[in-house]
Amino acid sequence: MTGMGRFITFEGIDGSGKSTQIQLLAQTLASKGYEVVLTREPGGSPGAEDIRKLVLEGDPDRWSAETEILLFTAARRDHLERTILPALAAGKIVLCDRFADSTRMYQGLSRGDLRGVVDQLHSLMIGREPDLTILIDMDPATGLARAKSRQTAEERFEDFGQALQEQMRKGFLALAKQYADRFRIINGAQGIDAVAESIANAVMAELK
Amino acid sequence: MTGMGRFITFEGIDGSGKSTQIQLLAQTLASKGYEVVLTREPGGSPGAEDIRKLVLEGDPDRWSAETEILLFTAARRDHLERTILPALAAGKIVLCDRFADSTRMYQGLSRGDLRGVVDQLHSLMIGREPDLTILIDMDPATGLARAKSRQTAEERFEDFGQALQEQMRKGFLALAKQYADRFRIINGAQGIDAVAESIANAVMAELK
Repeated sequence: MTGMGRFITFEGIDGSGKSTQIQLLAQTLASKGYEVVLTREPGGSPGAEDIRKLVLEGDPDRWSAETEILLFTAARRDHLERTILPALAAGKIVLCDRFADSTRMYQGLSRGDLRGVVDQLHSLMIGREPDLTILIDMDPATGLARAKSRQTAEERFEDFGQALQEQMRKGFLALAKQYADRFRIINGAQGIDAVAESIANAVMAELK
Repeated sequence: MTGMGRFITFEGIDGSGKSTQIQLLAQTLASKGYEVVLTREPGGSPGAEDIRKLVLEGDPDRWSAETEILLFTAARRDHLERTILPALAAGKIVLCDRFADSTRMYQGLSRGDLRGVVDQLHSLMIGREPDLTILIDMDPATGLARAKSRQTAEERFEDFGQALQEQMRKGFLALAKQYADRFRIINGAQGIDAVAESIANAVMAELK
């Protein structure tokens, strides 16, 4: 239904090509006349960007896993209230690079067994799930090679190594099964254009 | 029991004399040979102080009540892990100016009816209650006049006006009833020395 806001998130391991593909999808949707808001987590609103800096800069051991989850949830609440919900209310399509599913994976799995805490915190303070989630699925060896070729100031989240990336991939696929209604799994091993076309097809089917 | 760490918090409306009294109690306990750690909320650890700045500086409407509660809870978790629990484990007496009871009042009551959310978040992410809570009870007219005579960069939390301070006073007294085991109500309308003596008596009875 054109004119109805939709909340679409992109998930996947590092190096899976999310950032490139979200840009390509935004162009495709804009060329079809949709109003698109591109955003990302952590961050996505002025307050959430300030919290992002607090979490990602400095010593990696600066925060415990629990404090980090609370900070990410605070940032998400701000992002939701100030950016996502107003755009949806205005009938726009919101494309978001990572959302709560990333917290379920990265904080819920990799930093101690906190998945239960992440889920309870989400249902207490956030509640909203995406209307559609694009999971770009990819062999971690390929993803890791791509991630390492980039340089960012926030590298620690990409420094997990291949074993953990394997665990993340399995975790995302399990999430896609748990939330089968909203997840679409895209094969990220295809060429960029083929991936973009698969994503556009999945999204256009949803927007009809 | 000397040698056993105790977690003692001070609560009360603005201007009730908490800051003065907590200093006097620290001196009294130190003179009796106790090891004392003085701390406060929001803040109390390097990370929590950074979060405090994020919450209290800038536009008062910068954060919604819900985001603010999440940020305070993140700061409290850090404060608990990095300052309070290590001091208690070392057998020290921790005196803390405000703790979760202040969030139950100020965020739970005054910024929308969020008391349920505050309580659920506390039990999920903090858990720990003080061993003893000193509530300095005082007529809000007196407290407000004292608060206004001070100048701080964080005045908005003291800018609620007298009607709300009345509500806070009632709220704190209701909390003292709910958690009667750990609360001690001190009459703040006495002179400074008399208040200090009442507090010292209540605390020494607990330390015996």
